[in-house]
Amino acid sequence: MAIDVGTGQNRRAGKPWQPLVDGDTIAGMVISELDTPALILDRGRLLRNIQFMSERAQAGGVDLRPHLKTAKSARVAELATQGHSGGITVSTLAEAAYFLDHGFADLIYAVCVVPAKLDRVRALQKRGARLTLLTDNTRVARAIAERARVLDTSFAVLIEIDSGEHRTGIAWDSPDLLDIADVLVRDSHVQLAGVLTHGGHSYAATSIAEVKQIAEEERHAVVAAAERLRKAGFPCATVSAGSTPTAVHASSFDGLTEIRPGVYTFFDLDQMALNSCQVQDIAISVLATVISHQPEHSRIVIDAGALALSKDVSANAVLPDTGYGWVCDAHTNQRIGNLHVAVADQEHGYVEGSDIPYHTLPIGSLVRVLPNHACITAAAHDRYAVIESVASEDVEPAVVDWWDRVNGWKVE
Amino acid sequence: MAIDVGTGQNRRAGKPWQPLVDGDTIAGMVISELDTPALILDRGRLLRNIQFMSERAQAGGVDLRPHLKTAKSARVAELATQGHSGGITVSTLAEAAYFLDHGFADLIYAVCVVPAKLDRVRALQKRGARLTLLTDNTRVARAIAERARVLDTSFAVLIEIDSGEHRTGIAWDSPDLLDIADVLVRDSHVQLAGVLTHGGHSYAATSIAEVKQIAEEERHAVVAAAERLRKAGFPCATVSAGSTPTAVHASSFDGLTEIRPGVYTFFDLDQMALNSCQVQDIAISVLATVISHQPEHSRIVIDAGALALSKDVSANAVLPDTGYGWVCDAHTNQRIGNLHVAVADQEHGYVEGSDIPYHTLPIGSLVRVLPNHACITAAAHDRYAVIESVASEDVEPAVVDWWDRVNGWKVE
Repeated sequence: MAIDVGTGQNRRAGKPWQPLVDGDTIAGMVISELDTPALILDRGRLLRNIQFMSERAQAGGVDLRPHLKTAKSARVAELATQGHSGGITVSTLAEAAYFLDHGFADLIYAVCVVPAKLDRVRALQKRGARLTLLTDNTRVARAIAERARVLDTSFAVLIEIDSGEHRTGIAWDSPDLLDIADVLVRDSHVQLAGVLTHGGHSYAATSIAEVKQIAEEERHAVVAAAERLRKAGFPCATVSAGSTPTAVHASSFDGLTEIRPGVYTFFDLDQMALNSCQVQDIAISVLATVISHQPEHSRIVIDAGALALSKDVSANAVLPDTGYGWVCDAHTNQRIGNLHVAVADQEHGYVEGSDIPYHTLPIGSLVRVLPNHACITAAAHDRYAVIESVASEDVEPAVVDWWDRVNGWKVE
Repeated sequence: MAIDVGTGQNRRAGKPWQPLVDGDTIAGMVISELDTPALILDRGRLLRNIQFMSERAQAGGVDLRPHLKTAKSARVAELATQGHSGGITVSTLAEAAYFLDHGFADLIYAVCVVPAKLDRVRALQKRGARLTLLTDNTRVARAIAERARVLDTSFAVLIEIDSGEHRTGIAWDSPDLLDIADVLVRDSHVQLAGVLTHGGHSYAATSIAEVKQIAEEERHAVVAAAERLRKAGFPCATVSAGSTPTAVHASSFDGLTEIRPGVYTFFDLDQMALNSCQVQDIAISVLATVISHQPEHSRIVIDAGALALSKDVSANAVLPDTGYGWVCDAHTNQRIGNLHVAVADQEHGYVEGSDIPYHTLPIGSLVRVLPNHACITAAAHDRYAVIESVASEDVEPAVVDWWDRVNGWKVE
């Protein structure tokens, strides 16, 4: 299935598809006209990544409910949901409010809810959200029902299953599973929506074989929970699983109804280290300017530091000389030698490597930094400068659009 | 010198001091009414830290030009400049624009500038900013002069001295010092404002004695550079130094005209590890909610993860069991046993420790997390919930104000 960009109908609300740009570029702007540091999104790579995962889901017979915690962008959500139900996953209520305002009403808030947040959930319901909640605790399930009664509403709730990450959730064979389900079906102010898991321990895998095994554990845990529920007479419409590594490498989605990968939209060095992608799939980078030469200390310094790149160093476990990111040619996005950001102060990045080309990177020149972890790096920025790739160092990428992001936790 | 809060005149612009709050609290709001995660600022601790550094500067006979890259808050700037010249330091042009809008016109942009940023600097000048720039390069100095001519303006420029951090700057005895000075005095479109250094290598010190030694290196380097300039007939009005560790422990500020510490306003676990402060001085924390119990995996999970806390782990080099922050009682801000955030996923923090009090931290209860690095953690949030400290676990802190922050790099 090829994703139709630019002419199709978005299933989400029957709205005509909005063209990504009004012309070829924004008044002919190119990246050297951007203020640095700036977050760059390569549209061609984004579309390829989205198409790849969309086809994986379709081939596996499951819905793709992308996790928008990575992109936090309505434009990315519009692209990533094409050809699927239009449902999305969010990690904060601020994201829920933002995506609701952009027409996405079918939302899973995939973090265990606490009763104190239900008034905000209710406010979103009143604005039209069909927000499905998550719990792993019987007492919380009861408290959700009680609060729903007070608020004169009803909440759909998924039970979180721990498939091996041991973050939140219960084991598929825990006695709590049937207890929570019982609470959720007995009270008319709540509904049991199904089961959900996140195979986040795939991020610690050291081989594709291990990712495949974790994908099977993830699928098995949540499908087994669903079967237990159904055998006991409970409904279980949703059987939801997924992380990007397991979604990329799973041998089967049998028994699942949907997958929820997120970082696949952008990919990053950590996902490359996990064999989820190749370097040419990484759609996100930080444009930076060389601000100082320090040849006696074997480094150049750029104006992208800890705030623009984040302090995430996840890929270093597998990829030596990664530091806070790979330093690339600003036009082609090809890594320059083994240059990397070795130290990240607040607004300074120290670029080091075995052979620093001072002559081709004069003060004032631009580079692009590929990040360790796209979700965390992107969160430091409030918008994307969307570009089209170029193949040659002699051609400067054009900025074709600005896309916004929803950061923070404030529900607007 | 006691800082007069609430009645004094702010020297900055002769404006009457604005009271911090209109009443005792914001409509009686307490912290349990906040949405989590939320950034908390303890006003009493902030004022004590500000008074401490103000007295250090006054006793040392130097101006205090606080670095607002930490707080990024006009309210903090108003407090931190009281009793001093009103000049401040910024790390981005977005900060410069924000503080200018709040009446702070005397600004040092303490990151080496590149010519491409000068049009934005010029726009800020037109809005009234007296923005002093920084360079460590002769060719850049020339380019600044050339651009100033095109823009029909003049720029004041400091020469950055490397006092041992080896980030940016030149050695005090470098031939470049006089070359750059020469460019800056020969051209009427630029002025030589003086010299500046940052003893950032103090962050790697392992004892107070070492911090004191680095403070002397920092002072010596910049004062020696100033003396070289003056001996060669150049003006050198500003001799600027400072990091929080060196400002706290320096034995002398002789020869300096100003110090530029920043994180002292809030302090953090890293500064505590560096002996810059005690734990009871840390004014910033992240309020979080317990969202899951995992007794079989010896952890609880909170809704503050990598985005709310940052991925900074700086204090762990000295303080074991710190992880992504210390977990404290939400009311008193006292650490609970040795609880810490051991793992930080995007919106999940895994709280671990040798004895987790599940019974006193039920799901839905609040904790406060002390961060490794205040500058980086605060940057994830767009405002402060300002509170007054309480001494007892039985009293809930009141929220007395909301203060905004300027994040990102967009010049509004």
